[in-house]
Amino acid sequence: MKIGILGTGDVGKTLGSALVQRGHDVMLGTRDVAKKLAEKAAEDSISFRDWQSRNKKIRLGTFADAAAYGEILMNATAGHGSLEALARLRPGSINDKILIDVANALGPWTERQVRMFVANTDSLAERIQRAHPELRVVRALNTVTAHLMVNPAGLAGGDHNVFVAGDDPRARDRVSRFLREEFGWRTVIDLGDLTAARGLEMMIMVWIKLWEALGTADFNYKIVR
Amino acid sequence: MKIGILGTGDVGKTLGSALVQRGHDVMLGTRDVAKKLAEKAAEDSISFRDWQSRNKKIRLGTFADAAAYGEILMNATAGHGSLEALARLRPGSINDKILIDVANALGPWTERQVRMFVANTDSLAERIQRAHPELRVVRALNTVTAHLMVNPAGLAGGDHNVFVAGDDPRARDRVSRFLREEFGWRTVIDLGDLTAARGLEMMIMVWIKLWEALGTADFNYKIVR
Repeated sequence: MKIGILGTGDVGKTLGSALVQRGHDVMLGTRDVAKKLAEKAAEDSISFRDWQSRNKKIRLGTFADAAAYGEILMNATAGHGSLEALARLRPGSINDKILIDVANALGPWTERQVRMFVANTDSLAERIQRAHPELRVVRALNTVTAHLMVNPAGLAGGDHNVFVAGDDPRARDRVSRFLREEFGWRTVIDLGDLTAARGLEMMIMVWIKLWEALGTADFNYKIVR
Repeated sequence: MKIGILGTGDVGKTLGSALVQRGHDVMLGTRDVAKKLAEKAAEDSISFRDWQSRNKKIRLGTFADAAAYGEILMNATAGHGSLEALARLRPGSINDKILIDVANALGPWTERQVRMFVANTDSLAERIQRAHPELRVVRALNTVTAHLMVNPAGLAGGDHNVFVAGDDPRARDRVSRFLREEFGWRTVIDLGDLTAARGLEMMIMVWIKLWEALGTADFNYKIVR
């Protein structure tokens, strides 16, 4: 399967690596390909070019290239830049495609206070869906840290949950299956239409406090019944 | 111990019953005592007077009476009416008391859309704390349905979590102990200062979607590590 991932941060790279290892063809999309390839290594990380040489099968293109390439798309851009990134997609190249939106509605990080830029009565996923009615947006995975998205078995034997929300029931089913088959999620809870993205996106605020309290990002929610 | 509970809805009554059964002295507070006692039975419930006759040891008073009575206070009013209820407390009668705030920042229910009246950059618990600096507000329990608040063992052997947040670390410790000793919560996660109430209150939005999806309110979050 061809998968187009928008975003080349930790989340995009983690998703890309995992999907290539599963035998899929992956293109990551970025704003400016030349700039991305010229990027120097950050203090705690390697450069994108070095990362790509370790993950040779992963293609790099513009946001528009990655979206046109993928049969399934994933939005792993920083949430506050998602709409602007998606505005660059080529009309006609994304019709009916599923976009799995994993971005969080946080930032930009110029303010001291951690806050969401949309919450309560609207959500990032709904904004994306309204801006791109030709896509089938499914909110998923934003409730866990990147390496757990692709390896739930790495925590407590995988006995914890993720969720999907989206207006197209068949797209929700497809994404639930994708999460089970590609990443090994055991139980994906279907929360119905895209208004459920509000609650899922708002979970980031307690997630951040749990992260601080527990001193680790290696945790997740399990819905106990 | 004397406990003052503000609110005579399902949550207030459930907390009151459980605490009386544990041997505590409880007063429920309401806006208008005579009106509450004259209340007719609702379709799916008994009248307050009948309920009180089954729970003979529970006192009823005004909001101000209950707050003056209790050594520990609990806010179980409807969230959109909490500040107005608390404004009726008598100055000097609540100094340094802990208020366990279990209300949700939802409603009033006149609109079709489910929405919070405060979220993201502020919270109901913070508003209460600002309005009543003489109280020590601890946000807790709003993440579970009423009967689970007082009987976590009734679900999955009690293997799930609640949280506390509040600006006074000793008050958080006291409330954690209260939840463990009075209701049997095994693990209470301390999320730090009252800004964590934002995330805890926002969990109600995904809770509502889970309630719809699962077809029951008998579920809770477990933080898996």
